[in-house]
Amino acid sequence: MTKDVSFQFSPIGYIHSPFKEKIGMAKQSMMIPQATGLLKLNHDTRFQSAVEDLEGFSHLWVIFVFHKHLEKNWRPKISPPRIDGPERVGVLASRSPHRPNPLGMSALKIEKIETQAPNGVEIHLSGLDLLDGTPVLDIKPYLPFADAFPDAKPGWASAENFCYPVTYSKEALDSIKAATSAEYPQLKELLHQMLELDPRATALRKLFPIDTTANEGRQFGFRFLDFDVQWKIKNKGVYLIDLFRMNGTRDNESKGSHR
Amino acid sequence: MTKDVSFQFSPIGYIHSPFKEKIGMAKQSMMIPQATGLLKLNHDTRFQSAVEDLEGFSHLWVIFVFHKHLEKNWRPKISPPRIDGPERVGVLASRSPHRPNPLGMSALKIEKIETQAPNGVEIHLSGLDLLDGTPVLDIKPYLPFADAFPDAKPGWASAENFCYPVTYSKEALDSIKAATSAEYPQLKELLHQMLELDPRATALRKLFPIDTTANEGRQFGFRFLDFDVQWKIKNKGVYLIDLFRMNGTRDNESKGSHR
Repeated sequence: MTKDVSFQFSPIGYIHSPFKEKIGMAKQSMMIPQATGLLKLNHDTRFQSAVEDLEGFSHLWVIFVFHKHLEKNWRPKISPPRIDGPERVGVLASRSPHRPNPLGMSALKIEKIETQAPNGVEIHLSGLDLLDGTPVLDIKPYLPFADAFPDAKPGWASAENFCYPVTYSKEALDSIKAATSAEYPQLKELLHQMLELDPRATALRKLFPIDTTANEGRQFGFRFLDFDVQWKIKNKGVYLIDLFRMNGTRDNESKGSHR
Repeated sequence: MTKDVSFQFSPIGYIHSPFKEKIGMAKQSMMIPQATGLLKLNHDTRFQSAVEDLEGFSHLWVIFVFHKHLEKNWRPKISPPRIDGPERVGVLASRSPHRPNPLGMSALKIEKIETQAPNGVEIHLSGLDLLDGTPVLDIKPYLPFADAFPDAKPGWASAENFCYPVTYSKEALDSIKAATSAEYPQLKELLHQMLELDPRATALRKLFPIDTTANEGRQFGFRFLDFDVQWKIKNKGVYLIDLFRMNGTRDNESKGSHR
């Protein structure tokens, strides 16, 4: 067994997600229960049989490629997103995408399976923490007797998730109401879940924590669906200023901004 | 995004396991808690830092390649190992290795992490359900808040695992005593856990069920460590006849036998 062995895998399908960028996306699955999307399996008639009996399971594992990290070198130590956690941890003691093989796994909820969709099988999922366009290599049923260890020791990741209070301007509430569509009937709940977790890159979280008065009034933004979402730090919480409809030409690689 | 995209991954290490063949091996992780082995990471000094902070976690995900299934075509429907379950299910509704991309995942218990082992980092694991020589692509800490859904609906796999009663000949008990080594101080418990789950290939399980008197006296065997383990069906249970030390020349691909 030599170390230059390698294995090649082709996607069985791709994720269609409201998250076009990492900012605002949950760091783990099921943290934003309202986040829905779907896995479109490739057009291959065998998949119709291959997903039979899957609808009896409530949850599904998705094994995917961190496709934005393919060309990057891996780092032995990374900085976790939590501001109350350790400064740096071993990358294999984390779920960071900066790993030797940029593979990820998420346990998601199965909402609906459409085997007769025009372009192949579609699996509708919620609790999504995956970027739009994520290539999927495999899915597996979630088996509680093999996968659930609620008493497992969570190491450095043990602190509870902290949720910040979220408040809204009148303009923001009006915009949300106008933007609520058949596809996102619960847009407000979804935005709320995104905002209360602090929708910023790790560096900004650490540089400008929400829970000090020193950062009162600082503004941030991120892209979600086709909105530019603007918020600021107010009363040690998140205050949604407004959402602006973007034109379709904005750069797909935008990283959110700090003003 | 075309469908002929492919991604290439190299193992970060290999599994060293007492299971040299699938017969007798658990079908899911932690079903045989006594099954121990280790993951040897490749000799690369970066891994020493990369596993820092991992020892605080009790469990670990291992993402691996079903290396015996690389050249095989995938099948849309497979026959699950449970004799009380459905005849055939969709392969993506199963954990079968006959899948489009032969990737597997197992949640295992971390027993010990040796960062100063002479040939690189060694992670000692228990609850192992992996063949010796399995290539590992990634490891991730088990996060109970993201991974544990004890109330998830287990679909067709919902029936409890059935354990058969196990009894022993005097010869078997003597052989186990003689074979118990520093490496396997709890050989008897380990064998017991393997035997009570029915250590046979799926086809034999279904053809000759243990719990009918019609199969009384039928003998079976499997290879484990360097033993040929012989057992028979007795009183609707498993009766261990004896273990025989094998010479080292036996074919590595032996599939167990039915006599």
